[in-house]
Amino acid sequence: MLTMQDALARLTAYWTDQGALVVQPMNTEVGAGTLNPATFLRVLGPEPWKVVYVEPSVRPDDSRYGENPNRLQTHTQLQVILKPDPGNPQELYLGSLRAIGIDVAAHDVRFVEDNWASPALGAWGLGWEVWLDGLEITQFTYFQQAGGLNLDPVSVEITYGIERIIMALQDKTHFKEIEYATGVSYGEVFGQSEYEMSRYYLDDADIEANRKLLDLYAGEAQRMIDAGLPVPAHTFVLKCSQAFNVLDARGAVSTAERAAEFARMRRLAGDVAKLWVARRAELGLPLGATPALDPARPAASTQTSDDARTLVFEIGTEELPPGELRSARAQLVRLVTEGLAGTRLPHGEIRVYGTPRRLIAVVPGVGAREDDHVRLVKGPKTTAAYGGDGAPTKALEGFARSQGVSVDAVTTVELGGVPHVVVEKHEAGGAAPAVLATVLAQVVTGLRAAKNMRWNDPKLSFSRPIRWLTALWGDDVVPVAVSTLAAGRTTRLLRTAAEPVIAIESAETFLETLGVNGIVADHEDRRELIVIGAQDLVYPDGKIDVKGEASLIDQVTDLVEQPLPLLGTFDEGYLDLPDAVLTTVMRKHQRYLPVRDADGALLPMFVTVANGPVDVELVRAGNEAVLRARYEDAAFFYRADLATSPADMRARLDRLTFTDKLGSMADRAARISSLAHAVAADRGISSGVLERAASLVKFDLGSQLVTEMTSLAGVMARDYALRAGEDRAVAQAVYEAELPRNTGDELPRTVAGALLSVADRLDVIAGLAATVGLPTGSSDPFALRRAFLGLIAVHRATPALAGLDLVEALRTAAAAQPVPVADDVVPACAEFLAKRLEQVLTEEGQTVDRVRAVLSEAGRPARVDLLLAQLNTAVGDPDFRAVAAAIQRARRIVPAGTEASYSAAALKEPAELALHAAVGEVAAFSDISGFVGATRGLVAPLNTFFDEVFVMADDPELRATRLGLLATVRDLGDGLLDWSHLRL
Amino acid sequence: MLTMQDALARLTAYWTDQGALVVQPMNTEVGAGTLNPATFLRVLGPEPWKVVYVEPSVRPDDSRYGENPNRLQTHTQLQVILKPDPGNPQELYLGSLRAIGIDVAAHDVRFVEDNWASPALGAWGLGWEVWLDGLEITQFTYFQQAGGLNLDPVSVEITYGIERIIMALQDKTHFKEIEYATGVSYGEVFGQSEYEMSRYYLDDADIEANRKLLDLYAGEAQRMIDAGLPVPAHTFVLKCSQAFNVLDARGAVSTAERAAEFARMRRLAGDVAKLWVARRAELGLPLGATPALDPARPAASTQTSDDARTLVFEIGTEELPPGELRSARAQLVRLVTEGLAGTRLPHGEIRVYGTPRRLIAVVPGVGAREDDHVRLVKGPKTTAAYGGDGAPTKALEGFARSQGVSVDAVTTVELGGVPHVVVEKHEAGGAAPAVLATVLAQVVTGLRAAKNMRWNDPKLSFSRPIRWLTALWGDDVVPVAVSTLAAGRTTRLLRTAAEPVIAIESAETFLETLGVNGIVADHEDRRELIVIGAQDLVYPDGKIDVKGEASLIDQVTDLVEQPLPLLGTFDEGYLDLPDAVLTTVMRKHQRYLPVRDADGALLPMFVTVANGPVDVELVRAGNEAVLRARYEDAAFFYRADLATSPADMRARLDRLTFTDKLGSMADRAARISSLAHAVAADRGISSGVLERAASLVKFDLGSQLVTEMTSLAGVMARDYALRAGEDRAVAQAVYEAELPRNTGDELPRTVAGALLSVADRLDVIAGLAATVGLPTGSSDPFALRRAFLGLIAVHRATPALAGLDLVEALRTAAAAQPVPVADDVVPACAEFLAKRLEQVLTEEGQTVDRVRAVLSEAGRPARVDLLLAQLNTAVGDPDFRAVAAAIQRARRIVPAGTEASYSAAALKEPAELALHAAVGEVAAFSDISGFVGATRGLVAPLNTFFDEVFVMADDPELRATRLGLLATVRDLGDGLLDWSHLRL
Repeated sequence: MLTMQDALARLTAYWTDQGALVVQPMNTEVGAGTLNPATFLRVLGPEPWKVVYVEPSVRPDDSRYGENPNRLQTHTQLQVILKPDPGNPQELYLGSLRAIGIDVAAHDVRFVEDNWASPALGAWGLGWEVWLDGLEITQFTYFQQAGGLNLDPVSVEITYGIERIIMALQDKTHFKEIEYATGVSYGEVFGQSEYEMSRYYLDDADIEANRKLLDLYAGEAQRMIDAGLPVPAHTFVLKCSQAFNVLDARGAVSTAERAAEFARMRRLAGDVAKLWVARRAELGLPLGATPALDPARPAASTQTSDDARTLVFEIGTEELPPGELRSARAQLVRLVTEGLAGTRLPHGEIRVYGTPRRLIAVVPGVGAREDDHVRLVKGPKTTAAYGGDGAPTKALEGFARSQGVSVDAVTTVELGGVPHVVVEKHEAGGAAPAVLATVLAQVVTGLRAAKNMRWNDPKLSFSRPIRWLTALWGDDVVPVAVSTLAAGRTTRLLRTAAEPVIAIESAETFLETLGVNGIVADHEDRRELIVIGAQDLVYPDGKIDVKGEASLIDQVTDLVEQPLPLLGTFDEGYLDLPDAVLTTVMRKHQRYLPVRDADGALLPMFVTVANGPVDVELVRAGNEAVLRARYEDAAFFYRADLATSPADMRARLDRLTFTDKLGSMADRAARISSLAHAVAADRGISSGVLERAASLVKFDLGSQLVTEMTSLAGVMARDYALRAGEDRAVAQAVYEAELPRNTGDELPRTVAGALLSVADRLDVIAGLAATVGLPTGSSDPFALRRAFLGLIAVHRATPALAGLDLVEALRTAAAAQPVPVADDVVPACAEFLAKRLEQVLTEEGQTVDRVRAVLSEAGRPARVDLLLAQLNTAVGDPDFRAVAAAIQRARRIVPAGTEASYSAAALKEPAELALHAAVGEVAAFSDISGFVGATRGLVAPLNTFFDEVFVMADDPELRATRLGLLATVRDLGDGLLDWSHLRL
Repeated sequence: MLTMQDALARLTAYWTDQGALVVQPMNTEVGAGTLNPATFLRVLGPEPWKVVYVEPSVRPDDSRYGENPNRLQTHTQLQVILKPDPGNPQELYLGSLRAIGIDVAAHDVRFVEDNWASPALGAWGLGWEVWLDGLEITQFTYFQQAGGLNLDPVSVEITYGIERIIMALQDKTHFKEIEYATGVSYGEVFGQSEYEMSRYYLDDADIEANRKLLDLYAGEAQRMIDAGLPVPAHTFVLKCSQAFNVLDARGAVSTAERAAEFARMRRLAGDVAKLWVARRAELGLPLGATPALDPARPAASTQTSDDARTLVFEIGTEELPPGELRSARAQLVRLVTEGLAGTRLPHGEIRVYGTPRRLIAVVPGVGAREDDHVRLVKGPKTTAAYGGDGAPTKALEGFARSQGVSVDAVTTVELGGVPHVVVEKHEAGGAAPAVLATVLAQVVTGLRAAKNMRWNDPKLSFSRPIRWLTALWGDDVVPVAVSTLAAGRTTRLLRTAAEPVIAIESAETFLETLGVNGIVADHEDRRELIVIGAQDLVYPDGKIDVKGEASLIDQVTDLVEQPLPLLGTFDEGYLDLPDAVLTTVMRKHQRYLPVRDADGALLPMFVTVANGPVDVELVRAGNEAVLRARYEDAAFFYRADLATSPADMRARLDRLTFTDKLGSMADRAARISSLAHAVAADRGISSGVLERAASLVKFDLGSQLVTEMTSLAGVMARDYALRAGEDRAVAQAVYEAELPRNTGDELPRTVAGALLSVADRLDVIAGLAATVGLPTGSSDPFALRRAFLGLIAVHRATPALAGLDLVEALRTAAAAQPVPVADDVVPACAEFLAKRLEQVLTEEGQTVDRVRAVLSEAGRPARVDLLLAQLNTAVGDPDFRAVAAAIQRARRIVPAGTEASYSAAALKEPAELALHAAVGEVAAFSDISGFVGATRGLVAPLNTFFDEVFVMADDPELRATRLGLLATVRDLGDGLLDWSHLRL
């Protein structure tokens, strides 16, 4: 049996055989091999670097006392950096798996999108998790930025999770059973350390001491930056990170504090990176600079057919993320269509296909040549071309010379109404291969992803590296060349195929050749294979909710080229876990399809979809083991949580800092509770349910499961509350306090829930606006925008709250903060709220002028809804329109500052007297419907007034009186409608 | 060329092939691989453990900005632990050198005594530095204790210094030139880090921050110990150690502070060790327990000669330290002599020999058998043996049965005057091999070293492991067996010999066989070979000071079995370094013999002595490179120091803490200065020289060379002061302030020097006695005993200080401390001083009674010398003896508490009147000579008084008067002599 230590030695030897250096693990605790300077610093700058090293990676959060079969507070990473990208890093990687005896053809080895980012390091990259039968065994990333700097060249980072790989290879169900060395188990060597370090991280680390350490480390890091020493500075950044992780594992870090610490670390890491680059340059790049790759030479251009033939163009990529694949197919249609439209080649209908590793455009009937063509080259105006004597001028001679013709060869044509001399150029149509080569090259460079990356090709940028081009027009290679890529007639199959690269005879046989070799190029075909296959596997015991899981199925479809659905099962015991926990794990973590019975209850089985002709039993067993491990992990927390009362969980909120200035999570929960009570009392909607729910609000943040899977906050609160014997209504309200979790999410259905939800958001807005500030265009670290949107959504959806003025409530929330809130904070929040509401309403299709007309009521979004509805009705009413037109006319005529008062005695004309009388009779109104009714009587007097009365009378007193009367009209509806915005 | 990374891989593979586990370096900074829990914790307890790992070892103190060719702040160790000792670890080790291509026969590979101890870890072991051509490449230790616990089984620790080995293999003169991987140098990979981390450690680390870190770490360590978690506790102990080392490198740790921190770390490490052992036991020893080795079976006992033959007994060891070898030879003579005396074997003169790897006893003419012998076995008394009827009693029958004879076979013998029955046993003398086997076994178990260790043999303990026994009597093996060792007829040659184990034909040919094979068994023979060879090598340019270097030559002689003196040279430029620096390096670090010209000036050459037939050019070049590196290191510091003025160095004392409570070294220097001035003023011996010297005292502690080579303190002060243009007398006084550095060292010759020396010691004693306490039997962490002895020595040697009362001076010193000094401190110091003085004087041969008689003057040791000399004279004077006898008689007669007063009028008898008159005439005296003269007139009156006067008269008044008179006699010499101690 391959022992773990031998596996490490073999992997190391494999990579040193590929020319890598070996360095040692970092001698301060790091969370990942990426943090080792052999990665973090070396990926910066132009120097090449190839390295392999082991990194025991410390994740205090993953501490499980050694009890969980798959989680360790220290797991072993093997880290490889290839800088620059060698062009075939995935193939090299598969070679390394073979080096430790993994039959990559029998197993289901997959590259599943995983875009890595470390906010604390200002670093990110695109790449994948590598799955071995559903088990994540490696992180594979093309590093794009580190320390906030763009990386050039790009580095490939390969991070192996050694324990996981070895457990799979040795068929062990607990990491402790790993044969670490011959006759010695992992547990025997490291078991005690796992237990004890878990104790430190989870239970015993002194929070105050670690806070002090964090600050001391940050101080030293800053001092070293100031001293211009990136190496020690980096070491202290790492120590910061570990101290932070310890605090986090001890549950002493709030979301807000996390953001603040990340910002500090990001700033430090960024300074370190800049310094490193500068220092290396100063040292003259001791390891040299990475040479640029030469551009590719296109294939020789040949054309063997005079008939129209099919064009096929395949862009071969490394595994594209499903979302990017969808977008790329759409782009491909557009780019090929536009490209061909720019030629004079006749062609048939363009069709595109795509799998994770290829984008294909197929165009039948592409003509062999473009039609011939006459082109006019415009010369000087005729008047300038010939002198008075009709002799050619110098201008004409120059033009003719430049076109390579004699002055006799020009003709005259009227262009834009003016006669010019022109040269007629008879151009032969281009041959299809040459013309297509240009078009297709532009297709490649035209592709864009939502997130683009660079690899070893300086001119290209896309979602993932483009590694090959296949371009055939009939039997001929289209000589496309883009930067370092040249198209040929070969394509690639699965990397594990017996013959992974095959030649294509002709464009016409391309799709068939792929199909014969197992590659299903068409998304719909693959989807159908998956759905039918999956339903077949679970029939008759259960079924897949194809509609409900549509988005998951779409995703899975675009994760494979050659789908092979497999049925797996799991222990029934896990069905005791809440449905949401089970399905979150299946869908989000594993992309497995849940299987339900006729009543919709989960069955202890799942369907996964492998890629290619794997060893089914092997792959099934692997996937089952992975799910078991994940459920074991969840069950570990769930059991621990069930052994804890909601009150005890809530007590833990004391130890969770919300932010330095805003106190603990417990403080925050108390504020939410008292704010909810205040609002309820004010509106007369207090209740026992609210009382109880408010005393529990946010308690599940103190649970282990929610600490682990934050998306379950609220859901678990409801579950735990019910199991602890709380009323169903109370449990529901505690759940609803977290709603909505994102745009379009469920909203509170109960009044108590809505009150808590609103109070939660008011508190977070007031506190953070006062201490951190409102979101700006680029930065919203605490997701305050979402809080505002939630506030609006709940207000609009909860009739009981319709009368609540959110701005007033914000004032109350501000007064309850533990810090003084400046006077301008609540007004700024009110403005921000109004802007968000405007945005929401316009996105719902309301016209912006009407929205703005009623936005003065933004503090009560439900009322805005009402007013807007009335306004939309009113604008169809001719009377309203007449009144409105009159008011707007009055607004134009009456000078600013004119008071709405006048001496009625000075009125003389009947029309003005009539208006005066009508205005006096306008009844009180409180909304737009009321306004319409109340002002209907003004329509006639207003019309008459404007027809008959000359406002700007010569007599100043008369004029003032009439303006006063009109100002009264102007002010009608003031405060209800902002006439300045309304366009009718 | 073997790259460094390949060498690490090969060594790792070599040891895993030997069954070792591989673990990763520690993920917190450690100063050595020993600190990794894979060593420190795993050597504890009974579990077996075999491991190999790389450990980048951080030594902030060794920071040199990457400029020094041989010193790195982080160097790479490869660490191997073999637990239990496999019995042949040195041979396994040599195998590992072969595995990286070292021809161990061509090079001079040596095991040179190095007893490792880590006070901070409560750990120690015995072993060696392994030298490769004079270069220390490996530390090889048999671990005896860790965390204060005895280790059973003992672990072998092998620590390779990888950079040094690779530099030698690759023939590089600077570590940066090492080929780390193919085409990539060490400097290219690690150069920047060396520079920057050096900057941190030497210049930029924030002292306050690191002090806080140290305390926080110690706090966490203690908390984890309290929580019963040895693993995290150990991690924090390591962090303490690193923080301490950083402070130390920043020059912020004084000797006293170091001792205090070591004590704290030792305590923590001890608690960690105890906890670990307890936890492993609780866990049921996951790795099992080490099985005990079986006892050896002795060789079959055969005897092929009837004639007397030579006995040879060789005890084969691993390399003994020279000092232990000397002692072992002496023990061997004694043990063999005593052993043979306990037999009845005739034998010739016993001779012993020894080399580092063997102790040999040769005894010619050992008889073939002991003489036969009759032994009487004592039975019951005759009266109990026979009944009244003369018949044997049950007692006799029982005795006869127990002796296996019939009752008729007993005879009667008078024993102790009483007739007993006895049985005569005729015993044949033992055969030589059998008899000798018993004797020689006791020789082996009887050997003791100053420092003993254990290895894999549970019953044996010696300076180094005993690995084989060779025992021959003539042609026959003497069947000695001791624990796991059985003697045979083979011996071992150099490990690198073509045939490292050879058979010996007979005892008579043993020494010759060794000699023929190159082993020079006799110390004197080896010494002569070395001396003649060395003088030959340097003739005629220079010579070796054979007398002056006698102790070094003796040491070198016992470091080899087959001496091969080699001449090496070094660059003349290094002769600019002070003589003391050059020779300290040669003698102390390298055991090279310095070469001087006729005037005694150093020549740029040295003689080293290799062991065995090495490749001379290779070994010479290696040794030269080592010396160059050492000199380069010293020169680095020396140059830096010369660029710094004494005043600037002195200014650095501000940053050196003496102890937390006693301030900085600068504070201490100021106290020394002011105390020296006060004493000088008091005694009228102030001077300009003192003034200036006091302002400089201790300045060289701020120099880099002294920081590095502390034994040069004072020496460098003198050198730097002279070079800075100070007066010769001032420079000398600054030097003398440090004297004496140890017992028997040079003493100050100038008054200014003596004043500073005394002031230094007074200050350290007063300060530490007040804050830490006086030394106890087992603990003297600050070497206060040495300070007391220095004080005594200087006082006795400096006439100008004879009148100085050290106790008074201590009081002055105490008053100057920055902390309050309790009232009992100075008296306790005075008592401690008196005890030390008593010890010194009795060790000088003074009788303890006389010493104690004058010890009340211990505050003035010079006066004690005077009084003692006078007392020694006085005791030869019959008058003094008479007076003394009378005084002691008076002390016996006069009841305690009797006052020395009486009414002269009450005296009646002539004898008492005469005594009264004589007592009245005793002149004043100030010393013992004076006392003898002043009391001479009392001899006759006293004699008469005791002859004629009956003191205890019946008349109470008369009795009181006479007792009063006698009390006056009793009190004579009081305060000068303590009569209670004096025995005459």
